[in-house]
Amino acid sequence: MDCSGDGDFANDRGTMTDANDRTRRPFVLAEAIGILARTPATLDALLRGLPDPWITAHEGGDTWSPFDIVGHLIHGERTDWLPRAKTILEHGDARPFERFDRLAQFGASTGQTLESLLDEFASLRRRNLEELRALELTPADLERRGRHPELGPVTLGQLLATWTAHDLDHVMQVARVLGRQYSDAVGPWRAYLRIISGSQG
Amino acid sequence: MDCSGDGDFANDRGTMTDANDRTRRPFVLAEAIGILARTPATLDALLRGLPDPWITAHEGGDTWSPFDIVGHLIHGERTDWLPRAKTILEHGDARPFERFDRLAQFGASTGQTLESLLDEFASLRRRNLEELRALELTPADLERRGRHPELGPVTLGQLLATWTAHDLDHVMQVARVLGRQYSDAVGPWRAYLRIISGSQG
Repeated sequence: MDCSGDGDFANDRGTMTDANDRTRRPFVLAEAIGILARTPATLDALLRGLPDPWITAHEGGDTWSPFDIVGHLIHGERTDWLPRAKTILEHGDARPFERFDRLAQFGASTGQTLESLLDEFASLRRRNLEELRALELTPADLERRGRHPELGPVTLGQLLATWTAHDLDHVMQVARVLGRQYSDAVGPWRAYLRIISGSQG
Repeated sequence: MDCSGDGDFANDRGTMTDANDRTRRPFVLAEAIGILARTPATLDALLRGLPDPWITAHEGGDTWSPFDIVGHLIHGERTDWLPRAKTILEHGDARPFERFDRLAQFGASTGQTLESLLDEFASLRRRNLEELRALELTPADLERRGRHPELGPVTLGQLLATWTAHDLDHVMQVARVLGRQYSDAVGPWRAYLRIISGSQG
C-alpha cells in the first residue's frame, strides 16, 4: 500500500471508491482459477442430454452452435491459454504467441458426440488448472510481459483474466443461442425478452 | 402432415426447410421442461461459493447482480409462470394475468445468502415442474388463450416458451455480469471479447 503521508485523504477515497466499484474486479489469481474451474460443470448442466436440434442450433449464417463452442473451448485448452502462459514465462516478450485457430473445432470435433466433447473439455481444464496452480505464480509473475501477434505487449495477468472472461463470453453465447431458438415460439413476449430483441437495456 | 398431392415439390421443400432451420425450434413441451429443469444446476455451477464481490457485481446504475437475478427467478416461480398458466386453464382470456413485480426481489432477498436463494429456487422449480407435468397438457391446451395486461392475447404455449427463454436470458445475463468484471483486467484483449465490447458479431 502506498501511504505517502498523514491526511492523504484523496488517496484514501481513491482506495475506497475502487473497493466499492461493483462493475470491476481487479485480477486475483485464486478467484480466476475458481471461475475457470466452474465452466465445465456449467456447460454440462446447460447442455448434456439436450436433444440434437438444440446442440446443433445456431444464430444463422456462420454463427456457432453449442457443439461448435465446446469444441472451440477444447482447442483453447490445447493450444491457447496455458501454452501462451508458458511462452511468457520462458521467453517473455521475445517470442510472440502462436496464432490461435478460431475455426479448428470444425475439423477436430467431426464424428464426436457432445457428451465426449464435454468430458474432454472437463478433463483438459482440470489438468490445465493443476498445472497453473503448480506454477505458483507470484504477483511479479503476473506483471511479466509477452507479445501478442496482433495486440502487441500484454501481461501474464491479462492473459489469465482473458482466459476467464472468454469462458464467460461463451457461456453467455450458449445461453443466447438456445434462448433465441424460441424467438417465434414466445409470440408477443419477444418484445420483452432481451435475449431475443438483442437489447442490452 | 399436409400432403395435398403427388409432386407437390414446393410443399416438400417447405417442410424440409423448416426441419433444417437451425435458428428456430417449435415449442415442444417435453423439451421446454428439460431446459427449465436444468437452470437451477446451471446457476449453481456458475455461482455457488463465488466470493461475495462477484455475487454482488453488477453492470452499473440500477443493473442487477447475480444475487438480484436469482431472487428475481424465485419471484417468477412464486407468482408468474405457473400461476399464469393456471389462469389460462381456469379462466381463458376472460381474466387478464396479474402484473408481475420485476423489483420484488429487492425486498424478498434481504438478509438471505446466495446459497439459500439457490436452494430455494431449485426447490420451487422442481415443485413447479412436477405440477406442470401433472397437468398433462395436450397440444390443444397449448393453443388456449390468455390475456396479458399489456401484450393482449397470448397462448399457453407462448407462456411456457417465454418461461424457458426467460431462464436462458438470465443465465446469459449472469455470465455477462461476471465476465464484464474483467473489462479492465483483460487489458488490450478487451477489443476481442464480445462480452466486454458488447458486439454481437
